Amino acid sequence: MNFLIVNGPNLNLLGSRETDIYGLETLEEIMSSASRFADQKKITIEWVQSQHEGVLIEAIQNATKRFQGLIINPAGYGHSSVAIRDALIAVGLPTVEVHLSNLARREEFRHLTLTADVCVGQICGFGGYGYQLAISALAQHIRG
Amino acid sequence: MNFLIVNGPNLNLLGSRETDIYGLETLEEIMSSASRFADQKKITIEWVQSQHEGVLIEAIQNATKRFQGLIINPAGYGHSSVAIRDALIAVGLPTVEVHLSNLARREEFRHLTLTADVCVGQICGFGGYGYQLAISALAQHIRG
Amino acid sequence: MNFLIVNGPNLNLLGSRETDIYGLETLEEIMSSASRFADQKKITIEWVQSQHEGVLIEAIQNATKRFQGLIINPAGYGHSSVAIRDALIAVGLPTVEVHLSNLARREEFRHLTLTADVCVGQICGFGGYGYQLAISALAQHIRG
Amino acid sequence: MNFLIVNGPNLNLLGSRETDIYGLETLEEIMSSASRFADQKKITIEWVQSQHEGVLIEAIQNATKRFQGLIINPAGYGHSSVAIRDALIAVGLPTVEVHLSNLARREEFRHLTLTADVCVGQICGFGGYGYQLAISALAQHIRG
Amino acid sequence: MNFLIVNGPNLNLLGSRETDIYGLETLEEIMSSASRFADQKKITIEWVQSQHEGVLIEAIQNATKRFQGLIINPAGYGHSSVAIRDALIAVGLPTVEVHLSNLARREEFRHLTLTADVCVGQICGFGGYGYQLAISALAQHIRG
Amino acid sequence: MNFLIVNGPNLNLLGSRETDIYGLETLEEIMSSASRFADQKKITIEWVQSQHEGVLIEAIQNATKRFQGLIINPAGYGHSSVAIRDALIAVGLPTVEVHLSNLARREEFRHLTLTADVCVGQICGFGGYGYQLAISALAQHIRG
Amino acid sequence: MNFLIVNGPNLNLLGSRETDIYGLETLEEIMSSASRFADQKKITIEWVQSQHEGVLIEAIQNATKRFQGLIINPAGYGHSSVAIRDALIAVGLPTVEVHLSNLARREEFRHLTLTADVCVGQICGFGGYGYQLAISALAQHIRG
Amino acid sequence: MNFLIVNGPNLNLLGSRETDIYGLETLEEIMSSASRFADQKKITIEWVQSQHEGVLIEAIQNATKRFQGLIINPAGYGHSSVAIRDALIAVGLPTVEVHLSNLARREEFRHLTLTADVCVGQICGFGGYGYQLAISALAQHIRG
Amino acid sequence: MNFLIVNGPNLNLLGSRETDIYGLETLEEIMSSASRFADQKKITIEWVQSQHEGVLIEAIQNATKRFQGLIINPAGYGHSSVAIRDALIAVGLPTVEVHLSNLARREEFRHLTLTADVCVGQICGFGGYGYQLAISALAQHIRG
Amino acid sequence: MNFLIVNGPNLNLLGSRETDIYGLETLEEIMSSASRFADQKKITIEWVQSQHEGVLIEAIQNATKRFQGLIINPAGYGHSSVAIRDALIAVGLPTVEVHLSNLARREEFRHLTLTADVCVGQICGFGGYGYQLAISALAQHIRG
Amino acid sequence: MNFLIVNGPNLNLLGSRETDIYGLETLEEIMSSASRFADQKKITIEWVQSQHEGVLIEAIQNATKRFQGLIINPAGYGHSSVAIRDALIAVGLPTVEVHLSNLARREEFRHLTLTADVCVGQICGFGGYGYQLAISALAQHIRG
Amino acid sequence: MNFLIVNGPNLNLLGSRETDIYGLETLEEIMSSASRFADQKKITIEWVQSQHEGVLIEAIQNATKRFQGLIINPAGYGHSSVAIRDALIAVGLPTVEVHLSNLARREEFRHLTLTADVCVGQICGFGGYGYQLAISALAQHIRG
Repeated sequence: MNFLIVNGPNLNLLGSRETDIYGLETLEEIMSSASRFADQKKITIEWVQSQHEGVLIEAIQNATKRFQGLIINPAGYGHSSVAIRDALIAVGLPTVEVHLSNLARREEFRHLTLTADVCVGQICGFGGYGYQLAISALAQHIRG
Repeated sequence: MNFLIVNGPNLNLLGSRETDIYGLETLEEIMSSASRFADQKKITIEWVQSQHEGVLIEAIQNATKRFQGLIINPAGYGHSSVAIRDALIAVGLPTVEVHLSNLARREEFRHLTLTADVCVGQICGFGGYGYQLAISALAQHIRG
Repeated sequence: MNFLIVNGPNLNLLGSRETDIYGLETLEEIMSSASRFADQKKITIEWVQSQHEGVLIEAIQNATKRFQGLIINPAGYGHSSVAIRDALIAVGLPTVEVHLSNLARREEFRHLTLTADVCVGQICGFGGYGYQLAISALAQHIRG
Repeated sequence: MNFLIVNGPNLNLLGSRETDIYGLETLEEIMSSASRFADQKKITIEWVQSQHEGVLIEAIQNATKRFQGLIINPAGYGHSSVAIRDALIAVGLPTVEVHLSNLARREEFRHLTLTADVCVGQICGFGGYGYQLAISALAQHIRG
Repeated sequence: MNFLIVNGPNLNLLGSRETDIYGLETLEEIMSSASRFADQKKITIEWVQSQHEGVLIEAIQNATKRFQGLIINPAGYGHSSVAIRDALIAVGLPTVEVHLSNLARREEFRHLTLTADVCVGQICGFGGYGYQLAISALAQHIRG
Repeated sequence: MNFLIVNGPNLNLLGSRETDIYGLETLEEIMSSASRFADQKKITIEWVQSQHEGVLIEAIQNATKRFQGLIINPAGYGHSSVAIRDALIAVGLPTVEVHLSNLARREEFRHLTLTADVCVGQICGFGGYGYQLAISALAQHIRG
Repeated sequence: MNFLIVNGPNLNLLGSRETDIYGLETLEEIMSSASRFADQKKITIEWVQSQHEGVLIEAIQNATKRFQGLIINPAGYGHSSVAIRDALIAVGLPTVEVHLSNLARREEFRHLTLTADVCVGQICGFGGYGYQLAISALAQHIRG
Repeated sequence: MNFLIVNGPNLNLLGSRETDIYGLETLEEIMSSASRFADQKKITIEWVQSQHEGVLIEAIQNATKRFQGLIINPAGYGHSSVAIRDALIAVGLPTVEVHLSNLARREEFRHLTLTADVCVGQICGFGGYGYQLAISALAQHIRG
Repeated sequence: MNFLIVNGPNLNLLGSRETDIYGLETLEEIMSSASRFADQKKITIEWVQSQHEGVLIEAIQNATKRFQGLIINPAGYGHSSVAIRDALIAVGLPTVEVHLSNLARREEFRHLTLTADVCVGQICGFGGYGYQLAISALAQHIRG
Repeated sequence: MNFLIVNGPNLNLLGSRETDIYGLETLEEIMSSASRFADQKKITIEWVQSQHEGVLIEAIQNATKRFQGLIINPAGYGHSSVAIRDALIAVGLPTVEVHLSNLARREEFRHLTLTADVCVGQICGFGGYGYQLAISALAQHIRG
Repeated sequence: MNFLIVNGPNLNLLGSRETDIYGLETLEEIMSSASRFADQKKITIEWVQSQHEGVLIEAIQNATKRFQGLIINPAGYGHSSVAIRDALIAVGLPTVEVHLSNLARREEFRHLTLTADVCVGQICGFGGYGYQLAISALAQHIRG
Repeated sequence: MNFLIVNGPNLNLLGSRETDIYGLETLEEIMSSASRFADQKKITIEWVQSQHEGVLIEAIQNATKRFQGLIINPAGYGHSSVAIRDALIAVGLPTVEVHLSNLARREEFRHLTLTADVCVGQICGFGGYGYQLAISALAQHIRG
């Protein structure tokens, strides 16, 4: 089973900036941990990160070829991108939405996302560990 | 490490009604699975379910005596109970919010909860399996 | 055919307080009249009244055992209780909502109820006589 | 005792279109049933139906001459016609509002009507049988 | 100079109903007083009243043939009729809007009208005398 | 194939008033052009125009007898008439909504119509030529 | 009979600025015309103008000593001053509100005033002539 | 003169939790101080505290038997409980609402309460001392 | 200890107008009673009243020189004056807000004030006696 | 005459996904049909499709060099992209907006677009055929 | 070239209160620096500060006599004063709005001002230095 | 000291389109003027312009390496891009927001930006000269 993790804008800065909030782990390290965690469940992880909405959409569009499920952390695009929502609908792969922070504690415009209701479910507030929870959740959803 | 799982109104009907949506597992079975899952992590689970807002509040208030963390599925009270929110604030135990269904797919008044921002994070959309994800998340939060 | 009438908070004060608005009939007398009216239609009425949201939910949950339909006057809980709404959905019995007063003439927050769209229909503004209308309506709905 | 039943636009299509929703009874048949039901209570029913807001207003205005009460199913005009509301206020006859469907289950703009608070009460969701309930309710209101 | 006074729905009931609010003068009497008042200013008044939105629109459309200005009391249609607004725009005659009551004291949906900004100005709250003020205002507007 | 074009209030003034905006073509001329355009596609056009909401509703109701599709320019009634919407739903004929002007450039209350979602689609902003586009679109919808 | 005309901020600039919109008449000239007009009706006019909300309030408070009625053009304070509203309520003199321009044609925040519902009625859109209409209206209100 | 103080959910935690905000005084100590304060005014105080909305409603309902006035700190239920509001209306005892904190400084949903307008007045922001102010205020209201 | 009581617009009319609502006591008498009440607590009261927002702001600005606390009844300015709010923030003296009437029972725009969250707390609904409560509350706040 | 058709994100998936909704035609096929249709009118069509907002903006910016008009189906960007709106304003070419589906039947956030009022008009709900209608409409607009 | 700087309420407290936020510079010092800065550009600065809305309006009204441009820091009145807005419109001098703090970081009701769209532009967030930027901007606007 | 100026979409069209509004200066010329202006203050300017949100984000992310401050004109992305906001937060460089036009005079959706409160301050309405003001402001902010 192969999952694609789609990481939205600015997540590439993890570990180097705002480290008091998001910790010292880089995205590469978080993805590595997630990948090792997935290995134990016989799941292969690939991941992408981009600042470009279009690149993220293309990654989602192309995912049907090699992946059984998606994990998406749309970051800021979760609140503005109807186009990413549309890509998820079109592709139709089971998707789990992850956010590092607890959106309900942040600015009001972050409380809801345009992607939430086209995903299987959401996990937010658990930092980089949320990706591992998402892998478990997605595997359970697909297998069960 | 001991966690209390607080289950809100109507969750006692799981497995007997609306089984096409929520499946055939009863709350007892879901709690048993969650408990076995927790055992593997050296965590003891106790749980409560009630239709009474006051009983849920009292369970939260008393949790400080024996528990290091809370998992709450406030069900319908998540959208109306300032009092449960206040209990969570007062008690101050790390709490993870769980919902069986993906709230973003349901009536608009369910999209947000009064409890979300006083919890560590939220997990929704993964059915009974969400409790196991919550146990992992809460343990990680407390230990890490 | 057995119907359960579920009466929400403060309805126990009927006949003793605000008698200029609600008249001199007590809830017991209204329920007795409703019961006699139902007898003529070969329908048995039982009823419950409580100030406790949880008690009302439990009454609804347990109704499936002995009743073919529900009549609910949720009173104040009609505007705040997602949990009662959820109980009605879960139980799935045909339900008629009754209000003694014409909600549209009262405070704006009373104009809509959380229970209305999960009931067969609504009857409001006819005082205690509304229960008899509800019995007719519910019987017609079930038989027809 | 004479009641006038005022039927709003498109109700003339009952029984011929959308029969899966509204049934096979025509408005004439529903009015006949209502009339027979009223006869048993020594009440005479007359009725009007029109697609024209102005015709409905004139019917309401002229009702004072021969009727002791009104039953109105304003249909679509219930959500847009301040003029019908004003006619009901001006005429001052006790009025019961009826809707065939449960408005709370339909588009949000149908949840409230401009006529509700100038009527004695409302009955909705019980199809053509609602007119018979309204006759009972209006007679009870006037006699009691 | 000829003015047409366009009177909306239910104004035909003036003087016969709600006389405690609107007084004992009938619309005919109010129009007669207005006409006598206009005579002194060398203005001829004609008037129309209808419950039918379409009749009112046709009266406005045809006004261009014989009138230099319009006075409109749209009554309830002032709050719902985009079509009357459109007729006033299309015809382009200078128009004064009159309301017998002070709209700001009534239900919130009456505070604004769809016709106000396509008229020269508004006069409200002065009962039947408002038509005389409107005649003065319209004559002043056209002459000055 | 026969289509009925239903024209709402004030469209009868086309060509005689506001000619700088709507041009010099009368409704008759626009309908004639549309009819000739339809002829080429073996479609017969009939049309109606009225200031009366009720007349428009009756035209829609009666359309089922002789027409395979409707084209409607509801004009001002598109923003206020639930009754016309209901007629379209009841009749169930495929319908195309046309507006001469681009609604998005006009007052905010014109940006949405009550009829849009019960039609196949909308065409707005192309003046009288929009009817010809609508004929093509409706024919394509029915044939394809 | 004595009336006080209370003129709000910036009305002192009439005739000297924005003359294309408000004309060449100064406030003094408008007040003089109003005074002459009132003389014919045996009414004495005094007037005040101020940029100071407090001065306007004091003028209203002191009006009870010598005046039978008020005419107020609150200008910009009509949209922000609860204090002027309160002064009008406290003083209780019959008051007519005047605006030179048609408020419905201006910025949305000008469409309603805080003073409208504590006045007898409103006159807007007729420039300086509106004061004369207000004198007539107020005299009629007090005498009739 | 006897007053009942009704304390809502989570107030039982005063003095043991969030002591940096609410201080070290327990509810028992606050009630004792209030009682001693009342004694000086020849007023007897009884009090109740509950997490259960139903228990609070029953306390209010039963208060008519032995009390001349109520002091209520509805805590979280002040923002969600129409049922407590209804109990206060039904019972009709003069009531003073108290809040320990200044509601205007907290979350927006706490700025208004459902109970405020059915009480004589409100006192908020003065911690436990607010109850003593409420006793003075209520006694003054009843005696004066 | 010296307190300044800042009274907003129209409070100078107390005792002479609207006496059925606000009673026969003048502001001078209320201030005298408050002053005598304060004397017992070794507190000296000075007070100011003005219709001028600017005068009230200057009084607040100058209060730092001689006063330890402020009591403010902003009256109508409480709902419109950001400038008074800013003066209170800048000065930083502990302030108690008083309103004679229960704001929650009045027009919706009075339910909240711009000053509430920059004060220690609020007292409303107890007429002139509210000032005495405020003195107690402010003294308790400063001393405790 | 040359037109550029600008296709927004995810339209490249047409014909391969959600074929039950959007049919089996690919974008290439739809564009080919549109091109052939245009040929008959002596119009040359070029087209672009991209998931990248920036690419779409650049296409619009460069269109002035070789095209007399634009047809745009902004897809998801129609609801979020102020930048595309700004490009259309800056370029100033006559533009027709096309949507395959009837936006009024979809999620509420799709009912309006940011581009609508800077286009000549809109065509929605007619699937791929809408492009042909747009070509006709645009040609008519430019030629007529 | 002469500019008038109009300073709104509470700005006289600069340098003496809230110095941690606004710094130790007094308004006099800020105005002196601005004046020296202006001298270099051959511009003479005069300034006014008042707590009185009316005084500020009068300063704006009188500015036409001796000044070519205005710089206004309306402080709290920027969010409530339609009258100051009206004065700026009437006077018609080019005006630059300055705010010491970044309004977007403060309470939501400060995010927009009533004066912004009647000024040439706005400068906010740069403390007292903002006045110097405003002088440059205004000079450039007038000269360029 | 080095500053990066980040220019959003469509600013590349300056000087070639909408020259009546934005003038004849190209972005290159505006940037050159800004650069010369900066040189006098010993500041080096680099700049970027892109239609691609992702490119702008990358420019901001990379700015930390060589720049002490940012000047951003987000253009259309200021109203839709949470991702650019997030980039600014993450990077944490002092930033000044510039807009050529006065946003308060344009469409309502342009009145606020998502970036404003994460910048030091804003400058809008001064055309290309605003960049020079921003350079001064940013230098003053960093140095002072």
